[in-house]
Amino acid sequence: VSGEFAAIDRLRRALPTPGPGETWIGDDAAVVRAPGGGWLLLAADTLVAGVHADLALTGLDDFGWKAVAVNVSDIAAMGGRPLHALVTVAGPPDTGLDLLYRGIAAAAAAYHCPVVGGDLANAPVLVLTVAVTGTFEGAPLLRSGASPGDLVYVTGPLGLAAAGLRLLKEGKLAPAAALDAHRRPAAEVAAGLAARAAGATAMIDISDGLAADLGHLAEASGVGLALTELPVGDAATLDEALTGGEDYVLAFTAADPARVGEAFAGLPAPICVGRCTDDAATRTIGGRPLPAAGGWEHRWS
Amino acid sequence: VSGEFAAIDRLRRALPTPGPGETWIGDDAAVVRAPGGGWLLLAADTLVAGVHADLALTGLDDFGWKAVAVNVSDIAAMGGRPLHALVTVAGPPDTGLDLLYRGIAAAAAAYHCPVVGGDLANAPVLVLTVAVTGTFEGAPLLRSGASPGDLVYVTGPLGLAAAGLRLLKEGKLAPAAALDAHRRPAAEVAAGLAARAAGATAMIDISDGLAADLGHLAEASGVGLALTELPVGDAATLDEALTGGEDYVLAFTAADPARVGEAFAGLPAPICVGRCTDDAATRTIGGRPLPAAGGWEHRWS
Repeated sequence: VSGEFAAIDRLRRALPTPGPGETWIGDDAAVVRAPGGGWLLLAADTLVAGVHADLALTGLDDFGWKAVAVNVSDIAAMGGRPLHALVTVAGPPDTGLDLLYRGIAAAAAAYHCPVVGGDLANAPVLVLTVAVTGTFEGAPLLRSGASPGDLVYVTGPLGLAAAGLRLLKEGKLAPAAALDAHRRPAAEVAAGLAARAAGATAMIDISDGLAADLGHLAEASGVGLALTELPVGDAATLDEALTGGEDYVLAFTAADPARVGEAFAGLPAPICVGRCTDDAATRTIGGRPLPAAGGWEHRWS
Repeated sequence: VSGEFAAIDRLRRALPTPGPGETWIGDDAAVVRAPGGGWLLLAADTLVAGVHADLALTGLDDFGWKAVAVNVSDIAAMGGRPLHALVTVAGPPDTGLDLLYRGIAAAAAAYHCPVVGGDLANAPVLVLTVAVTGTFEGAPLLRSGASPGDLVYVTGPLGLAAAGLRLLKEGKLAPAAALDAHRRPAAEVAAGLAARAAGATAMIDISDGLAADLGHLAEASGVGLALTELPVGDAATLDEALTGGEDYVLAFTAADPARVGEAFAGLPAPICVGRCTDDAATRTIGGRPLPAAGGWEHRWS
């Protein structure tokens, strides 16, 4: 049995080489040239009922919102803005499409990312797939650009989504912020644009958990990570902040804290959580090893 | 219980109005402006194992090929050429990803439509979703541009895919063309470009069956249809040619047969199957009513 990342790598090796300046599989979104000369960002993510969400705990409208928001988050993580969405619903005939559409349409409106097409098909289980396009101005902002000495920032508290899900499962009263983080995650488009303006050298969104996702960034950049302290969300544990995932805050690296402060004027200030080191094997928090595991991987034989 | 088309219309009404010159839901692909100024085509289609294909009769590589080809066919039906694909696999851990990828990669190579991203997730049933981008030069070529008097063409024989599937199910020896049409449908990109060059006024690909798909075109254009004779594929019945679907040949309308002849030089000549009439209620073949039904619709409550 192998993991999702190994399986993706098998596909990647079967593909031709990207064009000049392009990035295909391996970042939050693909970076390709648009017809006419601009940059186009492309991303797709799928949510499976019972795997990615328990529909006894989450409404179909929340499920629809989340499918759009997690895709927009992939565009935000490139310092881009979303343009259009394609929505594909495969599900049983009794799927409550109107409620599902309500959440999809709400997220599409919130992120200025209209649904321009898609497909609708019957399947034994609800599988909701969204593909988004986006664009950016300037140079591609990838996972791989961090240098030793760059500061590491996150754009919001961590662990809220995991805490919200845990409290829902336990039937306990959860803080609104934790419930919202689980049910209606926000894509940080404005923060992504600010990070780009701040001269961010690398960026990723926290979908698999901070430890896993910063690990992806550090590995792609060939740097180590010496983290200090994390902004742990209310009601969340440190473990949830490190490995819970699905927070969809952005993590980015940048060299100049003054520039970061200026670029985020009017937005919640990003929190510095540590620094990139030149020893690529370093992965510490408060001097102790970062948890190596964490982050959900789908299984493939 | 309502059909797929009614359910899609419910979503469409919840959406904002497309930008100038843009077409969103309702054609083979969405037509939007690309960042930088060119035209971008966007389409997504999903294949569900057991619904769209019987994996006892079709290999996983064929399933992968088909998912890419039917999407490229949507681009071809706009007179466009494909640019990039996003591939999302949701399926059980024991899904044979390498075989699936082989078919996906073969179609991506055949249609110059590289896979640049996507997603991989576990689900109880295999659901393969592909989104494609494409582009075109000139004006959008929609379903809605046909005028009374325009000739109706198809770019190849009809009913082969349905005949191939029927013979497979019956355990009978099927002609290679029928088997290929079912297992490895071809997207008619070159024919779509030729139809555009021939001044085609409207175009659609035959996915739901000729009667259903030409019906969509005639309805969008506000014209009637007086068909004469159809090119029925070897081993196919007239009924399969009319309603079988999944042939992925293109049907288009054009005013000038000489221009059609010139534009298709070097390609298989398209076959004239009739004419558009000014009475929008007319739907005949050889003077008799076209079958009203036909074409698969997924069900929604």
